Amino acid sequence: MYNWKELLGYINGEIAAMPLDRKPSELYAPIRYVLSMGGKRIRPVLMLMAYNLFKDDVTAIRSQAVAIEIYHNYTLLHDDLMDRADMRRGMPTVHRKWNDNAAVLSGDSMLVMAYRFMQRGCPEGRLDEVMELFTETALEIGEGQQYDIEFETRRDVGEEEYIEMIRLKTSVLLACALKMGACLAGAPGEDADLLYRFGECLGLAFQLQDDYLDVYGDPAVFGKKIGGDILCNKKTYMLINAFCRAQGEEREALQSWIDKKEGTFRPEEKIAAVTSLYDKMGIRELCDEKIRFYFEQACRILDEVRLPQERKKPLWDMAQSLLNRKF
Amino acid sequence: MYNWKELLGYINGEIAAMPLDRKPSELYAPIRYVLSMGGKRIRPVLMLMAYNLFKDDVTAIRSQAVAIEIYHNYTLLHDDLMDRADMRRGMPTVHRKWNDNAAVLSGDSMLVMAYRFMQRGCPEGRLDEVMELFTETALEIGEGQQYDIEFETRRDVGEEEYIEMIRLKTSVLLACALKMGACLAGAPGEDADLLYRFGECLGLAFQLQDDYLDVYGDPAVFGKKIGGDILCNKKTYMLINAFCRAQGEEREALQSWIDKKEGTFRPEEKIAAVTSLYDKMGIRELCDEKIRFYFEQACRILDEVRLPQERKKPLWDMAQSLLNRKF
Repeated sequence: MYNWKELLGYINGEIAAMPLDRKPSELYAPIRYVLSMGGKRIRPVLMLMAYNLFKDDVTAIRSQAVAIEIYHNYTLLHDDLMDRADMRRGMPTVHRKWNDNAAVLSGDSMLVMAYRFMQRGCPEGRLDEVMELFTETALEIGEGQQYDIEFETRRDVGEEEYIEMIRLKTSVLLACALKMGACLAGAPGEDADLLYRFGECLGLAFQLQDDYLDVYGDPAVFGKKIGGDILCNKKTYMLINAFCRAQGEEREALQSWIDKKEGTFRPEEKIAAVTSLYDKMGIRELCDEKIRFYFEQACRILDEVRLPQERKKPLWDMAQSLLNRKF
Repeated sequence: MYNWKELLGYINGEIAAMPLDRKPSELYAPIRYVLSMGGKRIRPVLMLMAYNLFKDDVTAIRSQAVAIEIYHNYTLLHDDLMDRADMRRGMPTVHRKWNDNAAVLSGDSMLVMAYRFMQRGCPEGRLDEVMELFTETALEIGEGQQYDIEFETRRDVGEEEYIEMIRLKTSVLLACALKMGACLAGAPGEDADLLYRFGECLGLAFQLQDDYLDVYGDPAVFGKKIGGDILCNKKTYMLINAFCRAQGEEREALQSWIDKKEGTFRPEEKIAAVTSLYDKMGIRELCDEKIRFYFEQACRILDEVRLPQERKKPLWDMAQSLLNRKF
């Protein structure tokens, strides 16, 4: 059995060795750029771990593991374009470094490449199932991104639909990675489905923690500036619940901070004020509980997978360290 | 054996019956819009015809035929976005009717849907081959689009690289449609390859004719205004060759028309002047000959497919009518 670090090293080696030498080079340069930015490679590692629950030769599915990482990076590329984000992992985004058209077209080719790697070297008899799962997941992720865009201009987003949005936008890809690893290993369908649900819950916990850390993370280790979501009024789990709960004065205070025009206040002022409102309203505890709820649900589901505990240790460890991150 | 009209009706029925009722509806509305715009459905019809050379039950590959039409429409959607085109088939383009993000995201989901339809109901044992061919074609089409974008800002585009660009951007999809139809029918590899090359040549003739008709088409039947390519200095087969051949006064005249700022001349004036330069330099005949050359090559290749002539009649007829169009 391999641990995260070993599998991460393996995946990074595979990605670095990818031949990206087709012409025209201007089309493939942004793809090389995006794939060389690094990242935690969570999805391919989860896929290899799920495979490794049932089979030892993880190299047999290296192509599918690379595929899911290419796919994930394509979504980041196009999402950054749609969100007009300037930076990703400390580097300029593709549409900033090149231009919008390069971001559209190189992203499109990455999606096609993801399908190529999904298909190539797919273990005998598994291709249909793999394609079906991958395609359904890709459609759902597009749906999640659409909801995310729509939520930006809505004032009445509820907790339930927010959870459904992050499930589609984030969780289903972790779930897909895990289930696909199991399917590729020829695991029983029930176990593959359990791993899918484990990934869903883990993804929800992970995304809610992202919301939480933006407010309550340790600035020394968080990597990004604390309070970024507050400053741009991003509809996070925190803000949505604050809105649902706020009454009277609290509601007025929250609304007035949201409506304030940029430049009419110091950023720290808004961050401190909104954080203090969250604190007063118990939003911190609410989010913390929700993270725990999904994490514990994930653990219960992984527990149901009919394998010895020690076999599942790398997955336990990875889930733990994903949720213990302060960055 | 089915003719074009019958197969067109069949495909239009299949596309109209596609369930596009997933949520959020804002994501799928542009997809429905684009697919309902109509069009000649050349690619799915070619696929069905190629299949029909070898097998009778064309409905067996309806999913793959729909897939290639969805794919083609996705390329139009994203190309229109990149080209900032306002209209397509007499209707506003998706980024004009909705916005840029809708065009990016709905286009992405169309590409994923194309893969879904490619995979679903694929005849036993053919999936790997179908996916490989489709993906390679999709990569090539992205490469063609990239060349097309790069050519816009280059002054030294030669005839050969122009032909390679339109081969990638246009021809390989016709070629892929034909070869895939043959593969799906279990045709001998040699015949499938011949049909691929037939499609390549037909596509080149077809695209060159597009360039030709923009200048020499009958305005009453062309559908678009004559001279559109001339007005926007589009690097067509005509302009590229005019540039290669022009000397002395002719070169100066051509260059000065290209450099003239919009609004400083009447459109008809520029169209008439550039057309007259083409006429003097024999560009009309040159293009006409090239169209014939590729069309005749296509015919020779189709001739080599080892089937009775009558079996190939629908394909002959379609090739003829594609090249006889004045619109």
